[in-house]
Amino acid sequence: MKNDVNRQFRLKTRPTGRIETSNFDFVEQPIPEPGPGEALIRVLYLSLDPTNRIWMSDMDQYMPPVEIGAVMRGGGIGVVVKSNSARYKEGDHVSGLTGWQDYCIADEGMNAMGVLPKGLPVGLPTMLGACGMTGLTAYFGLLELGRPEPGNTVLVSAAAGAVGSIVGQIAKIKGCRAVGIAGGPDKCRHIVEDLGFDAAVDYKRKDWREQLAAATPDGIDVNFENVGGEIMEAVMARMNLFSRMPLCGMISGYNTGDPAMRADFSPILMRRIEVQGFIVVDFMAKFAEGATQLATWVAEGKLKHRETIVDGLENAPVAVNKLFDGGNIGKLVVKVAEAP
Amino acid sequence: MKNDVNRQFRLKTRPTGRIETSNFDFVEQPIPEPGPGEALIRVLYLSLDPTNRIWMSDMDQYMPPVEIGAVMRGGGIGVVVKSNSARYKEGDHVSGLTGWQDYCIADEGMNAMGVLPKGLPVGLPTMLGACGMTGLTAYFGLLELGRPEPGNTVLVSAAAGAVGSIVGQIAKIKGCRAVGIAGGPDKCRHIVEDLGFDAAVDYKRKDWREQLAAATPDGIDVNFENVGGEIMEAVMARMNLFSRMPLCGMISGYNTGDPAMRADFSPILMRRIEVQGFIVVDFMAKFAEGATQLATWVAEGKLKHRETIVDGLENAPVAVNKLFDGGNIGKLVVKVAEAP
Repeated sequence: MKNDVNRQFRLKTRPTGRIETSNFDFVEQPIPEPGPGEALIRVLYLSLDPTNRIWMSDMDQYMPPVEIGAVMRGGGIGVVVKSNSARYKEGDHVSGLTGWQDYCIADEGMNAMGVLPKGLPVGLPTMLGACGMTGLTAYFGLLELGRPEPGNTVLVSAAAGAVGSIVGQIAKIKGCRAVGIAGGPDKCRHIVEDLGFDAAVDYKRKDWREQLAAATPDGIDVNFENVGGEIMEAVMARMNLFSRMPLCGMISGYNTGDPAMRADFSPILMRRIEVQGFIVVDFMAKFAEGATQLATWVAEGKLKHRETIVDGLENAPVAVNKLFDGGNIGKLVVKVAEAP
Repeated sequence: MKNDVNRQFRLKTRPTGRIETSNFDFVEQPIPEPGPGEALIRVLYLSLDPTNRIWMSDMDQYMPPVEIGAVMRGGGIGVVVKSNSARYKEGDHVSGLTGWQDYCIADEGMNAMGVLPKGLPVGLPTMLGACGMTGLTAYFGLLELGRPEPGNTVLVSAAAGAVGSIVGQIAKIKGCRAVGIAGGPDKCRHIVEDLGFDAAVDYKRKDWREQLAAATPDGIDVNFENVGGEIMEAVMARMNLFSRMPLCGMISGYNTGDPAMRADFSPILMRRIEVQGFIVVDFMAKFAEGATQLATWVAEGKLKHRETIVDGLENAPVAVNKLFDGGNIGKLVVKVAEAP
C-alpha cells in the first residue's frame, strides 16, 4: 500500500444486480491538503452497510444517490493526521462519512466528523458496530418504534447481521422473547447459543415457515424488519393485533429491485399494525443517550458483538456483497490502514 | 312488505367478484320472540359499508367472516317494538349490528345495542353516517392517527364517499389543505363546491396523475387511505418525510382480491412514513367525545352530510355494489321500514 496517494473508489456505473468491482474506477489522487478550519483524516476502518447499495442506485432514497464519477459514500473511522481546526487534534479518532478512500477532509460544517472519546474500552471496529450507528439503529428502532413490553415476542430478520444481532439482545434485556431469522445452521446456532436468542428460524431450510410458526406460538408483537420480500410477508401474517413494525430495511430488494419490496398491505389494516420506516439519523438528538447505554451494556457483558474484518480498501466492492449473499456474521468492516 | 314475517338475507355463497343477489338466500322466518333481558327490534335503516364485502369473504379480517347460512352481518338502526329488558323501552331507537333482516334481537350482553338519545337534531340516516360510525371513522382516523397540523396537505381517496367526505371537511376545520380523489366530474364538483375541499382529482380521467401532482404542490403530509391499488401507490410516491398514513380501507381490492392490496413498501422506509391500520372500534373508549364533536359541527353547519337512501331491504345486495362501482355519493343506507 502506498502512503503517498489517496486511493478512491469512484462510482462508474450503477449496479443492476450484484455489485461488481467494475462498477467503480479505482483511482489514485494526490493526498488532499486541508484548508482553514479543515483537517486531513487518514481512514482506518470503513463500515459496510446495506445502505451502500441503495446509495449506488438511483432509486428513491433518503439521501441523494452517489453521483456517477463521485467517491463512493460510506461511513468510517479515521485518525487526524493534519489539522487546521481547533475541533480536531492530530491523533484524534473521528467517525463519520469518510467515503471509500484512504484520506478525506473533515471540516467544521456540513462535512464535520465526530471526535471519539479517548481511552475507549472497545476497539475501533466496535465503534462502527455495536457502539456506533449500527447499535444505535437497533436501539432506537426497537425501543422507540417497536416499543416492546416484557413478555412480548420480538422478531428480527437478518438476525445474525450487524443490526439484527443487537436487536435480539436488546429485546432479551427488555424481558422479551427474541426470535431471529437467519440463513444456515452456523448463524442460527450463533444467535441462540452465543447471543441468547430464544429461537432461530433458518430461512435456507424448506420448512422455514413451519419453523417460524413454531418459534412464535403467541404470534409476533414487534417485527424489526430488515429484509422485505416473502420473509416479511410470512412474518406479517403472524403479527398480532396492534403490533409494531419498525421498517429498517428491505435488503432482499436492494439488488433485485421493486418486486421484493412489494407486499400485501391488508394485514396492516386487519391487524391494525403500525408500520414506521426510519433511519438512524432520525434519532440524532438522542444519540448520546443511546451510545452511553449501548457502551454500558457492552461493558457489563450483556451485549455481545462480533466484527468481520476484511483487510484492504481495494476489497471493499467485493466484500460489500457479503451483506447480500448471507456470507457475513455481525458487523462487516474493511480495515483500510493500521491505527497508529 | 309483510309485517308478520322476518325477511333475512342469509349468505349462500361467497362472492368471487361483484356481489350478486344469488350469493344470498332471501328467506322468510317467523318474527323472533325476545327472551328474558332481550328486546325485539324492528330494523329501520341499514348502513351499507365496504366492510360488508370483507365480511362476505373468507379473507383474513378483523371479525370472523359471516358463516355460510348465517344472516348477513350489517350495521343498522331500529326501533324497540317489544322489550323484556330495562335497558330498552318500547319506541327507543337503537343502533348496532342489526343484520340484513327486518327484525333482530338485542340483549344486554354481546348483542347489546346502543340506545340513541331522544330529540336528535338530525335524521336517523345521519346517525349511521356523519354522526355515527362513519363520522367517527373519519374523526379518529384523521385526528388520532393522521395528526394533521395547520397548513398540512391532507389527501383522502374515495373522497365523495361517506368517510372521505367527512375526512376532508374535518381537515378544513383543522386548517389544512384538503385534496380529494374521486371518480367523475359530479363527485369532484361536489367535494370542492359543496364540501369546501381545496382541490379534487378525478381518477377517471387519464391525466389523474398530473392532476394529483398539481393538487399537491407541497407533497402530502397525511394520506387517509381508503382505496389501495395504483391510486395508493401514486399517492405514497408524493408523501413527505415523516408523513402519516391512516389505513382505513383498500376498497379497490375487496372485489378483486390480493393484487390491489399489494404495494411498494420502499416509500415507507425512504420517507419514514407512519402507516397505521385501524378500525373505528379501536377508539370505542372515545366514541362519546367524537360523537359530540361531530354533532356540534353538523349543528353549526361546519360539517355537511349527504345520504343516499335506497328503499327496501330486498335491494340491499344490489345497492351495496354502488360502493364498489363508484355510483354513490355520501352515506349509503337502505330504508327497511318507515320509522313509527
